[in-house]
Amino acid sequence: MKLYGIGVGPGDPELLTLKAYKILKGVDMIVAPRSSEEKRSRALHTVEEVIKERDCIVVEPVFPMTKDQAKLEQYWKKAREEVVAKGNSCETAAFITLGDPSMYSTFYRFLEVFNDLVEELEVIPGVTSFSACTSTAQIPLVEGTEIVSIIPDVKAKNAMRVIEDSDSLIFLKPKDLDKIEDMLGNEKAILCVKVGFEDQRLVSGKVSEIEEPTHYLSTLIVKKGTKSLEVKRRIL
Amino acid sequence: MKLYGIGVGPGDPELLTLKAYKILKGVDMIVAPRSSEEKRSRALHTVEEVIKERDCIVVEPVFPMTKDQAKLEQYWKKAREEVVAKGNSCETAAFITLGDPSMYSTFYRFLEVFNDLVEELEVIPGVTSFSACTSTAQIPLVEGTEIVSIIPDVKAKNAMRVIEDSDSLIFLKPKDLDKIEDMLGNEKAILCVKVGFEDQRLVSGKVSEIEEPTHYLSTLIVKKGTKSLEVKRRIL
Repeated sequence: MKLYGIGVGPGDPELLTLKAYKILKGVDMIVAPRSSEEKRSRALHTVEEVIKERDCIVVEPVFPMTKDQAKLEQYWKKAREEVVAKGNSCETAAFITLGDPSMYSTFYRFLEVFNDLVEELEVIPGVTSFSACTSTAQIPLVEGTEIVSIIPDVKAKNAMRVIEDSDSLIFLKPKDLDKIEDMLGNEKAILCVKVGFEDQRLVSGKVSEIEEPTHYLSTLIVKKGTKSLEVKRRIL
Repeated sequence: MKLYGIGVGPGDPELLTLKAYKILKGVDMIVAPRSSEEKRSRALHTVEEVIKERDCIVVEPVFPMTKDQAKLEQYWKKAREEVVAKGNSCETAAFITLGDPSMYSTFYRFLEVFNDLVEELEVIPGVTSFSACTSTAQIPLVEGTEIVSIIPDVKAKNAMRVIEDSDSLIFLKPKDLDKIEDMLGNEKAILCVKVGFEDQRLVSGKVSEIEEPTHYLSTLIVKKGTKSLEVKRRIL
């Protein structure tokens, strides 16, 4: 089987690449991970207009957000059985993931589990959620020799030092913001919730004024030393 | 005038987004920056198939890579005159830039110079060169709570500290690699030169073994603690 690992971008179907679009129009099977039985895959939602008139196999295995390895193994085993059962006669399959496959995606974990079934592999990069955030907010994230760092967890090793030393910061699914208030409280920030989706929301202000978001598709962007991250022309 | 700031991605025309494609098919004028009179714009090269049957105005102002402010001002003034002269009757214009408009692009500098002419603005994010690199190399850049930092200049303030504290690193246009050899010499790295273009080149090995690239479209990716950044299936 030939497997495509496809980044479908931040959620807006128009931010698919031409390459991803063409592959999704031709592939035999689409594998779209989701976080629970109750939820639909957001990556699948993003491409549904592209595939709605197609007769291809769609599998939505559940990969819960848990650190319990034994539980995860069970879900991976189940996912493998489902993909093998439904995709037995498929020559091509696409694993779709929000954003870019190389950044905080389950794609490479999926590849490990299915490695023996894959004869050929092609990975298609996608637009990241933070690029969608900065474009929507119409702000430059970094210029010249500025350093930007991506922080998925402020409690991770060395995170506080990196936050102190970088010029711009991208906090994914931001929480424990009180940890950075002393350092960044007065800096300007933009919080983007569900950017790329129809119900996206942007909030700008000082870091100290921004409330911790509850939705997991949230990104907090800080550009140190900027007078304002509000742009007059912003279309929202 | 309505201005679109469009990230056209890393260079492969197939990595344009559907949104960028549609806008480029309809816009009255395209502004494509280039670094010297002798060179064509790489962003324009990326979209040439999209616009080749179109009858739209194309302006290629020169923005040289110099830190001489007086010289830059002259070029910006000239660019403005050219855009105003040629685009006088245009209702829509697109400024195209490689990668993403918010990351190390001239787009926001352009916007400052042309601000009074722009009635409406829309910014379209693009696939970054480092996502194209990791996809081509078929490697995960970051997983879980790992921190990744982008370093355009190892001599910039705090760069060495960020390099020490991050899990993964993206060096843009890498030079002065001897500065990081003590710290990262034994780590595995991938050097990507002109990724996305037809003559792209990937080299993998230890940081200490990798030669400094001469081409400015180069990216060095380091993922600390990885046994190998060589992937068996890599298609090159």
